[in-house]
Formats: sequence, structure tokens, C-alpha cells
Amino acid sequence: MCMIFGIDSFLAATFHSSISCSKQKRKMENDNLSVVLHAQGDLRLEQRPVPEPGPNEVLLQMHSVGICGSDVHYWQNGRIGDFVLKKPMVLGHEASGRVVKVGSAVTHLKPGDRVAIEPGVPREMDEFFKSGRYNLSPTIFFCATPPDDGNLCRYYKHSANFCYKLPDNVTFEEGALIEPLSVGIHACRRAGVTLGSTVLICGAGPIGLVSLLVAKAMGASQVVISDLSADRLAMAKELGADFSLPVKREDTPENTAKHVASLLGVQPDITIECTGVQSCIQTAIYATRSGGVVVLVGLGPEMVSVPLVNAAVREVDIRGVFRYCNTWPMAIAMLASKNVNVKPLVTHRFPLEQAVQAFETTRQGVGIKVMLKCDKNDQNP
Amino acid sequence: MCMIFGIDSFLAATFHSSISCSKQKRKMENDNLSVVLHAQGDLRLEQRPVPEPGPNEVLLQMHSVGICGSDVHYWQNGRIGDFVLKKPMVLGHEASGRVVKVGSAVTHLKPGDRVAIEPGVPREMDEFFKSGRYNLSPTIFFCATPPDDGNLCRYYKHSANFCYKLPDNVTFEEGALIEPLSVGIHACRRAGVTLGSTVLICGAGPIGLVSLLVAKAMGASQVVISDLSADRLAMAKELGADFSLPVKREDTPENTAKHVASLLGVQPDITIECTGVQSCIQTAIYATRSGGVVVLVGLGPEMVSVPLVNAAVREVDIRGVFRYCNTWPMAIAMLASKNVNVKPLVTHRFPLEQAVQAFETTRQGVGIKVMLKCDKNDQNP
Amino acid sequence: MCMIFGIDSFLAATFHSSISCSKQKRKMENDNLSVVLHAQGDLRLEQRPVPEPGPNEVLLQMHSVGICGSDVHYWQNGRIGDFVLKKPMVLGHEASGRVVKVGSAVTHLKPGDRVAIEPGVPREMDEFFKSGRYNLSPTIFFCATPPDDGNLCRYYKHSANFCYKLPDNVTFEEGALIEPLSVGIHACRRAGVTLGSTVLICGAGPIGLVSLLVAKAMGASQVVISDLSADRLAMAKELGADFSLPVKREDTPENTAKHVASLLGVQPDITIECTGVQSCIQTAIYATRSGGVVVLVGLGPEMVSVPLVNAAVREVDIRGVFRYCNTWPMAIAMLASKNVNVKPLVTHRFPLEQAVQAFETTRQGVGIKVMLKCDKNDQNP
Amino acid sequence: MCMIFGIDSFLAATFHSSISCSKQKRKMENDNLSVVLHAQGDLRLEQRPVPEPGPNEVLLQMHSVGICGSDVHYWQNGRIGDFVLKKPMVLGHEASGRVVKVGSAVTHLKPGDRVAIEPGVPREMDEFFKSGRYNLSPTIFFCATPPDDGNLCRYYKHSANFCYKLPDNVTFEEGALIEPLSVGIHACRRAGVTLGSTVLICGAGPIGLVSLLVAKAMGASQVVISDLSADRLAMAKELGADFSLPVKREDTPENTAKHVASLLGVQPDITIECTGVQSCIQTAIYATRSGGVVVLVGLGPEMVSVPLVNAAVREVDIRGVFRYCNTWPMAIAMLASKNVNVKPLVTHRFPLEQAVQAFETTRQGVGIKVMLKCDKNDQNP
Repeated sequence: MCMIFGIDSFLAATFHSSISCSKQKRKMENDNLSVVLHAQGDLRLEQRPVPEPGPNEVLLQMHSVGICGSDVHYWQNGRIGDFVLKKPMVLGHEASGRVVKVGSAVTHLKPGDRVAIEPGVPREMDEFFKSGRYNLSPTIFFCATPPDDGNLCRYYKHSANFCYKLPDNVTFEEGALIEPLSVGIHACRRAGVTLGSTVLICGAGPIGLVSLLVAKAMGASQVVISDLSADRLAMAKELGADFSLPVKREDTPENTAKHVASLLGVQPDITIECTGVQSCIQTAIYATRSGGVVVLVGLGPEMVSVPLVNAAVREVDIRGVFRYCNTWPMAIAMLASKNVNVKPLVTHRFPLEQAVQAFETTRQGVGIKVMLKCDKNDQNP
Repeated sequence: MCMIFGIDSFLAATFHSSISCSKQKRKMENDNLSVVLHAQGDLRLEQRPVPEPGPNEVLLQMHSVGICGSDVHYWQNGRIGDFVLKKPMVLGHEASGRVVKVGSAVTHLKPGDRVAIEPGVPREMDEFFKSGRYNLSPTIFFCATPPDDGNLCRYYKHSANFCYKLPDNVTFEEGALIEPLSVGIHACRRAGVTLGSTVLICGAGPIGLVSLLVAKAMGASQVVISDLSADRLAMAKELGADFSLPVKREDTPENTAKHVASLLGVQPDITIECTGVQSCIQTAIYATRSGGVVVLVGLGPEMVSVPLVNAAVREVDIRGVFRYCNTWPMAIAMLASKNVNVKPLVTHRFPLEQAVQAFETTRQGVGIKVMLKCDKNDQNP
Repeated sequence: MCMIFGIDSFLAATFHSSISCSKQKRKMENDNLSVVLHAQGDLRLEQRPVPEPGPNEVLLQMHSVGICGSDVHYWQNGRIGDFVLKKPMVLGHEASGRVVKVGSAVTHLKPGDRVAIEPGVPREMDEFFKSGRYNLSPTIFFCATPPDDGNLCRYYKHSANFCYKLPDNVTFEEGALIEPLSVGIHACRRAGVTLGSTVLICGAGPIGLVSLLVAKAMGASQVVISDLSADRLAMAKELGADFSLPVKREDTPENTAKHVASLLGVQPDITIECTGVQSCIQTAIYATRSGGVVVLVGLGPEMVSVPLVNAAVREVDIRGVFRYCNTWPMAIAMLASKNVNVKPLVTHRFPLEQAVQAFETTRQGVGIKVMLKCDKNDQNP
Repeated sequence: MCMIFGIDSFLAATFHSSISCSKQKRKMENDNLSVVLHAQGDLRLEQRPVPEPGPNEVLLQMHSVGICGSDVHYWQNGRIGDFVLKKPMVLGHEASGRVVKVGSAVTHLKPGDRVAIEPGVPREMDEFFKSGRYNLSPTIFFCATPPDDGNLCRYYKHSANFCYKLPDNVTFEEGALIEPLSVGIHACRRAGVTLGSTVLICGAGPIGLVSLLVAKAMGASQVVISDLSADRLAMAKELGADFSLPVKREDTPENTAKHVASLLGVQPDITIECTGVQSCIQTAIYATRSGGVVVLVGLGPEMVSVPLVNAAVREVDIRGVFRYCNTWPMAIAMLASKNVNVKPLVTHRFPLEQAVQAFETTRQGVGIKVMLKCDKNDQNP
């Protein structure tokens, strides 16, 4: 049987055989085409066994899975920081699907339920978990973080407690987008965004954009978003940014900070730094109002040079975020009530079989969010 | 020509003597027609001297002043709780105007500036003030709370530090409405409304409605509002309530609480009680989710019978609000950025000269907010 | 030798049949003498099978178990609120013991470890648990709350995640006292006790006393404690109360509040109400400083009449506590570092076999804490 | 008699001209010997006029004034950061004294009252002040920060609202020590020290030591303190540190962090960094537990290189402190109730006339706190 993949017509043709490979249409429970990273640069579409859910798990037929920058980063680099790929791993963690089987102890879900998947599942009931910050639990399971498999596949099992039922008026793609949205929620929550907050967001990539959406939904009165790319800034304006600030690599942090203040008329209460670039972190500190907060979402080099005294003597707090916790219920509530519109974030869709092409598209930085459609019979949003 | 107004000839006669006329048009600085409560039931329009601002004060030409339930209550009862009218007092505290003169030490305002007035000005630098809760300072000055005069007049002086400049795109009436809006802001802030909050608001009067607007602006996903009046509920729906719940006096609190849960699908995280009625406070406690918050905005009898154990063992916190503090800047930010629309709240307008008619309209509970127009030359919103 | 105990011969006879004797010393794993409440007023000492721990559980040889007012209340009334005894239940939930067997998945404990037991173990990973407030989870397991068995016995199995290893310098009895201490911790934490806080504690029973110890350890500068009993107040003074306030049933809440203010020189920032009595709740509200907090720990009648407006307009928050969460680690830290001394709380000790006498002693309100010693070979503190 | 003091004859000569003598004993109201910094390195004792208090001010006869590292820094460098000495300035801001005259509007103080002085007095009622963070107000008056004069003199006037009456059982020196103690309070409060907290303090100078005292008083179970100096660590142990960690300049931050964890058995919840040294800030980040807090108290170079990603992905918050706010009342409460003992901090005392010798002693880093005694007739603690 042939397993070869790629991004162009040659590859498309190649996939043909690997998908339809059976005389009859493959029985659903046997086709578990999965996007597997074998090593740095070695991404493969291959069959995996359909898993059997444990007592507290559900088996899901995957529907929509977004590609995250981290998926691409693992593909390109084989690692992120201390997380190193040592054996083949299924990618994907921005996901939604339909329950097809429930474990014996599961009571709140039933086959047919449409769910969004929270990819992090604590393995231990440690102090972090008990105190409501399970994202910090060092032994947490997390989809597509080595060595834990992700859910870019046809069938996937997951802890039922971390699958959240979607209301009828929330689409599968919105469900998949809860994952990046959660980063924005967690960042804005840690920042303390509230009614009338003025906010600077550094970086208009997917995370900057969801932070923008969330900040506005939490009552921010004015949001400035900065980026090198005019295209991204244009999208940010469409999504509700009050001001967009084009920046250049040669701008000094102090000057950028001044531009921000002149746009808003005041220094922002909050800066959400989504680039990880040293000069942007410096800008974030200089720009933020005394008594305000800088949230670090983007991750850059381990060691950075920053004006910490400037932050300290103005009591500008510096807070990081590690993923998120306790965000799915509120995200679903916001989507159901139509208070946040994430739909414009999806700019590309590919069937699962074209995963490599989808990855290549993401790698090139085209558009915002690339969505893979895992259900052959339902490729709708 | 001499201008005398009133809702009937009796009142006109009453006022006649106190409004002295002149052959020529009165010079602006001498006409300080003021709405003065002399005693329970004895509301008069009369001239008062135009005040001279002190070093840290500004003199304002009043533009728009809303009538609050408390103004009517003083008129009808001569007191609210321990605050007893003992000498004539100018009414009015929901106000905006234009700076006409600034004290010698004032630097952030200049003649011509349009401002909203925060009616509470702390007199002492006590621990409440120093710690940011100046509304609790026992010696605070507060417009139209005996014995402090309000600003329902032509000219009024006020602490410059508690006058906030309005941007060009915020009207005087919006500026006046910041006062009731502030009650909603303070209530929602103390309640901890945030992204995805589910909220029950008891009472769809002006304060219930501003609480609704603020809760939605702070990210509440679903708001249920309850009231006896179908008209008020209809207005609440127009202003953005997700559900309206008509209640009857004979409903039991437990049943009303169940209705709320069935509308939302869950118990609300937060209940904002704006009626002060004992059965509504009971409903608020029964209705609220474990770990949630009941905020008491409405004030009723001193002693009420409530299921405190029910609240305690479910860790439902009960928090009151006393007016507000630190709300004007964020309110102006929200109005300027068009994230909150308070304009529909104004249902009636009267020139200052028709103040008694305006009070009578408010007393009858017609409409939502009655606005008095104090500037003879500009009666625009 | 056959061990039969009781406070009088009648009781001895009653228990005789349920405590079977053997010629030889009973093998440890077979003797599981347990204190079982069969029905209101029907407390029995009887043998129960030694349980087998599940994969995430440990089997404990119980050492010290304190008697709580709630144990006595179930014995005397057969119920507390909605929790009704419907089948025989082992009592006891203030407990410590030694690990004798560990489940297959347990890694952080081993046989021989001395542990304190947190009696509440969430059964579901619901939103309360995920957000760090597992005490509010409606399906939580809780020792000696119907229908869940407690640990007043020789052998008991428990979730390993809710057993906390005791350092060598913390005794078993201190370990057992972490349970009531946790109520004080949770109350003081919800109250926001901090450096320089002034605190009123209503009621000098065991919970009032642990609240006193915790409040002082958290930095309270002055604590007033009130009670009807001079003996209890004397003990409170010994434990560190700055002022004791004897009260009489006929005192008015307003007057008691004034006495408190005159003792402290100011109104207390915080009141911790440990009686549940209506007049004390009223006192708590009147006594507390504007902007302060009343914490309700004592539970009284479902419906109470309280001056809620007085609390609301002074922004005195009213917060309940339901048991506790996340307190064992910090309690152990405090005991190990000798920052809190709970040892004087234990005024009586009985061997497990004299459980009925111990319960009778508790019922009579003699002393503070009665401790049952469950290990025949080690009856030390 | 003419009073001339100094650490040696050279200095005595230097000061001679500025200390004018009189044949008779100087009348108190005329002798206002003051410690004036004229320029970098040019510290003089000279007479200044006794000031006249304004309506909201009090005139104080100074009693005890501690020398702060910042006083010495201005003397040695003529500046701290952007604060540059441009004209002669009286030094001193850790102070207490006795009221000798009150302004016309002062009601809470009277002549004879013993008071501690909060050296920062906001000049504007800006948003920082209104929201309870007046220390961040950019226009705040602050003793001995250019261009504002301090209170190292005989007579000094100050805002009555920032003078706090001392109870009889709190000495003047304790009153003066409230200033450095406030830094510790503010740091521990921003750190969130609470019951059972484990704390690392980097640096055992005066600020490290007061942070230690406050952390223990707020319930910290274990405090590790690190320093280069064995003497300082010995003092820290005497003052209650659970562990002292001698460090060397060549230690790597990672290794020091590991030592801290091995001493405590866990990573500390909180690190209070009091050195400002880059490697110590790095240690602080590496050492602190996920979800914990690093508070930056020490100030070093404007730009530092730090492992910000390490902090961010573990959600270790980095918070600075700028002086303090709202600390005097709680500090007085703690001192009056004997919950904190600051007396051992005073290791040297000099009469005001020997100010230069006292400064020299401080500069040499001998002892902990040098206290200047400003009242010729009362040189007691």
C-alpha cells in the first residue's frame, strides 16, 4: 500500500490511491488517516489504528483541525525549547469533532454530540490542578507536544472531561478556533482587561488577532495593534482594532512607545506582546502606563535584554502565559451568544488528505488560519 | 419677558415670587434659576446667586441634568434613610455642563471645556480615599444629598478634580448619563462580570438597564432581566437583554430562581439586584450559582429576611454598592469609543423652567430617564 | 483479651454484641473496629471489613481522629440540613494515620508514611474542580457526610491525592487538627486577613479558636473574640486573643458592635461569625468597618433577619465558607515551621473503644477538642 | 554654647562656618540645624529658617531620622536615575517627630502628638491617587528626592494627612523605621505573601531584613535569605530567617536556584529581589516556583539580561515596587501589637550635629541602620 504525500498535483494524485485504497469504501472505523511527524522535516500521512476509549474517554470522529505555528515549528525544527521530538507524533491540537463512542464512566456526552477539544489534560492531581491552574502542571498531557499525539487524524480518543459540547449555533470550525481563542482569553484575563481598558497588542498574527477580539469583548475601549506587515494590520482593522501601527525593524522601542501614546492620547493600560522579539518586549515596557501590565505571549530567545528598572519603578507588571486553563466554557458562551466572531480568521481550508499542502501554506505565512477538514463526508465549516 | 413655568397654575403661582424678572434679558451671570427643595413636597424654582469658584474649583454653566429616583424620593419624603433635609437644598446630581471660569490652581481645564460632573467629592484625605475607595469616606460631599446642594441650576461650581472633559463625540446628555452608568459600572465591577459571565438583573428600571448595558460591554454572554412591567422588559430587550422574565408579586423566590436557570440553561454566575424588595433579594440568593456573587444595588427596608445559610454554604458572596468611585474615565472611554450606547435611555426632555413638570413625570414612572435642559441657548442632547 | 468500653454498663452491654472478641490477639488486618451511626441516637462500635485500596488509593491505619460538632449533630439529629442519614455510616473526618498499603498507581506515598487526611475528594472533574474550588463540587465525596463513610475506625482507605505526608516534627494529632484548622484558614483567606487587620470573631468554640490562631498567623494586629462562656473566652485569651468580649443573650447587636469598636479603637476590618445565631450575624454586620468583610462560618436557621442595607451601603461584603479547599499543604507548612500551635486545642483523649464516652463528652461541651486514638499500639499525640 | 560636631577635625572645620553660634542657648524656634546636600560630595550642616505650617500642615520637632542608602547615594553621586540634585536639598525621609504647631484646617492632630511621617505626599488628585496608588503619581512630593527637601533637621513642616499618630507603646525610632518597613510591606503585599508561603529574599541589607520581618508576620512558613556577607546573614538568622544562603559572585544563577530549592524542599512561591544585581534577578526567576511571583525591590542598571521566557512559560510574574502606599496605619498596628520587632535594626545612633559622621558610617556599610537624633533634649530611642 502506498503512503506518499505532497503539496501539488503530483502529490494530489499520490493521495488518491492511499485514500481510496480499498475495493469498497473503507469502513469508517478502519480509516484513521493521520498526520504524523516522524522527524524534523519528515511529515507523513499514514494510517493509525482507531483507538479504543477508556472508561473516562470518548472516541471522536475529527471534523476540523487548525494548523498552529507550533505544528509548523515542530515540522521545521523537530523541537520547541525543551520539547524534542524523539518518536513519530501525530500533529494537531486546534480541534473539534463528533463523539462516536463513550467510555463506560462518561455521563455528560453521548454519541452524536459535537464537541470542542481542550488539548491539555492534567495527568496528576497536583497542587497546580487542585488550585485551578492545571496548565502549569508539569506532567500534563498536551496534544502534539512530544511525546503526546495530537488529533490531526480521522479518529481520536480524548478525556471526556476535556471535551465540551458545542451548541447547535456554533460551528465545528468555531469549535476548533476555541484553542487559539483561549490563548487570547488567558492573555487578556491575566492582563486584567476590563471596561475602558486601553490596550497595545504587538503583532497581528493569529494570536494577536484573537487577543484583539477578546480585548474588545471584555470592554477595552481602544486597541492599538502593531506589526511589520501592512496586510496583517489591514485585517486587524477589519476585526476591530481602533488603531493600527505599522512598525519597521529599525524603529527604536522608545519611539514606538511614543507613537502608541500619541495614537491613544494616553499610555495603554495593558500591552499584550505576541511577537517574542526583544525590541518588541522593550517597546511593551516603555509603552505601558505606570501601574499597568505587560503580558508576554510570544516566545523568543531564552535570554533577552530589557529595561526592567523602567518597569519596576513604574510598577508595570510583567506576566507570562502558558497556554490557558478554564477557557472553553466561556469561549463557547461567547461564540453561542455571538459576542465574538472568529469566523473571518479562517482563510484556507484543505481536506485532511492535503495536509502537507496545508502545512506548506501555513509555513509561507499566507492568510491567517488554515483549517484541515478531517471528515470526508462533511467538509463544511 | 419673564419666564415662568410649571405643571399647573397653582405651581406657577407658587414659583412666581421666587423667580424675579427683569425688563431686559437677564445677564447670564445673574440668572441662576435653581431647583430647590425646601421641605418634603415643597419643590421650588428660584434664583440663587451665581457662585464664585475657589482655587481648585471651576464654575460651570449647566447643560443637561437627569432626574434620579433619589431626587424624587427627597421631594416626596424629605429624607432617604439617615439623610434628612433640614434646610433648602438644590436637587440634581446627574449632570454635565461647560466650564465658564476656572480657579487659580486649576490647570487641566479651561473655559469652554465641556465636562461631566462626578457629584461625590471627598472632603478628607482619610484611609478610604487614600486606598482608592473614596465613595466610602463618611464626610464626602455629594450633590443633592442633605445638606449638600446639587446642580439642577444654571450655574454651579465644583471641584475641578471631579470634572472630566468630554471628547467632541460625546454629547452633554451622555455626559450627564455617566452618573447612572457609573452605578452600573461599579455594580458590575464589584460583581466581577467578565468574559462569558451569565447574569441575572432584578429590575428593569434605569439602574437595571445601565447594569445591563455595562454587563454586556464587559463580556457577559447572557443576561436575564426580570421586572413586573412588560414595558420595561420590552425596553430591556431592545437594549440587549438576552432574556426577559416577567415576574408577579405572588411568585415564590425559589420558583423565579428556577425559571432563571431554565432560561439560561445554568444558574447565573452573578445576580445584580436593583429593586431592594425582600422577595427579590431572596430570589437573587437562590438563583445564583455556587461560588457566584449577588450585588445589592436596590435599597429596601433596613431589616430583611433572607436565606443566608443557602448563600453561605454555596459561597455565594453578597456585596453592596455605595454609589461608585473611579468610573468617569472609563465611562468616557466607553462612550467615546461607542462601545456603550446610553442615548436610548433618555425618553423625556424639559427645559429647566419646567422642572416641576419633569419631576412629576419622573414620579409617575413614565419612560426611563427625564433630562432637564439648563442652558437656554442650547437645548440639544 | 477482649476490649469493651463505654461510659456506663448500659452502653457496654449495647456494644457487646457488635464487638466480637477472639481468644488470640486479633490480626491487625481483621480488626476494623468502627464507630457507626445507625440512626439518630444509635451510635455503635462494630467491626467492619478492612477495605482494599483501589489503584489511586491508600489503605491507612488510623491514628488520631477528632470529634467534630457535626459528628455529634448527626448522632443527635440524624441529619444536618439536606444531608440525612438513611443507612449506617461510619463517623469521623478530622483524621490522620499511617499508610499500610498503596494502590498500584500511587507514587508519592509508601507504606509507613504518616499522613493527614483531607476528607473531601471530588468525584467529578467539573468546572468547580477545574477552577480550584473543588469544595463546591456538588458530587464531592466527604467523610461522614451521608451517605459517605468517615474514618473513625482502625483501617480506612482514601484517595492518595488527598493524603498529605506529615513531616517528622508534626504529630498525628496535629495532623488530625488540620481539618478544623482548615476551616479557619479558609475563613481567614476568604476574609482577606492580612498584615495589620483588625478582626472580630463571634464565638470561641473550636472553630472560633482556630480562626483566631490563623488570623494572628496571617498578620492580624488585633483580634477581639466574643462568647457567652467565660471559660471559652479565657482559653481564647491564652491562645492569643487581644481582647475577649463576654456577651449576654439580651445584648443588642448595635451595642455589642459599639463595645467591639471601643475595645479596638476602630471598627474591625473583618468579622468572622462562628455561631450561626441571628443576633450575632446582625452584630457582625453592624460591627464591621465600611469596606470590610463579614465571613459566615457558623450555620443557623435557613432564614435570618439581617440589616442588609446597612451592609450594602457601607460595602461590607458578606461571604460564606463551605468547608475548605487547598489548605492542607499550607497548614502542614505552618505546623512544621511552628508558626501555629494547635496542640492546646486537644483537651481530651479516648481510645477508640471508648468512642461513645468521647462523643458524650463532646456533646456536653466540655473542653475544646476530644481526640480518639485508633491505634492500639500507639496512643501518643 | 556653641555646638559643633563631626567625625574629625577636618569636617568640624568645614562645618564651622555654616553652624552659627550664639552666646545664649538658642531659642528652640530659631535653631533649625539641617543636613543639606549642596552638590555631589558636598554635605553641610547649616541653619535653615523654621517653616510656618500651611492650613493643612503641621510643624514638627524632629526626633529620629534614619539614614537610607538613597541619602548616601545622593551624597556620593548627586543623582539617582533621572532625579538630579540641582540646588541644595535637605536630606532624610525615615522620620518621626513631635507636633509643635498645627495648621488652621487640621483636626486630627494637636501639639504634643508623637507622629511618624510618610514622606510621599501627592500633589495632584490624579487617577493614580483616586484609585489608591498614589505612590505612582508623577508629581508626588517626596522628602529628599530632588527638588523636595527632606526632614533631617530640627523643625520640619509636613502635610498633616501624611503624619500618623504613634501610640504610647511605639517609640520614635520605631516610628522612623516605618519608612523602610513600608518598603517591605509593599513588597510582600505585591508579592502576595500569605499563610504558608515559602519565600526567597535576595540580599540581607536593611530592605532584605525588613522584607524578612514582614514576610514572617504575614504567615510565610519558610524564608531563605541570601547574601555575600556572612555578617548580614547572621543578623538575618537572628531576625527569624529559616535558612541563610551564602552566595559568591561566581555562582551561576541556575545553581543558586537549585540550592534554594534543596534548602526548602520545594521551589519558593515568592522571591523578593533586593540587590538589583543582574545575576540575582536571573536567580530570582530560575528559583521561583511556576505560578509564583518575583518582586523587584533592588534597582540596578537600566538594561538587564534576563531569562524572560523561563518566567513567562511558567507564569512567574515579575512585579516591581515603587516606594509604597497605604502602609503607615498597618505598620503602626503591627508595632503597637508587638507582632513585628524592628528595634534590632538600629545599630548606630548619632546626634544630629554628628550627621556627617553618621553618613560616613552608613557609607561604609557598618551595621544595619544608623539613626540620627534630632531633638537635643531627648536622644532616647
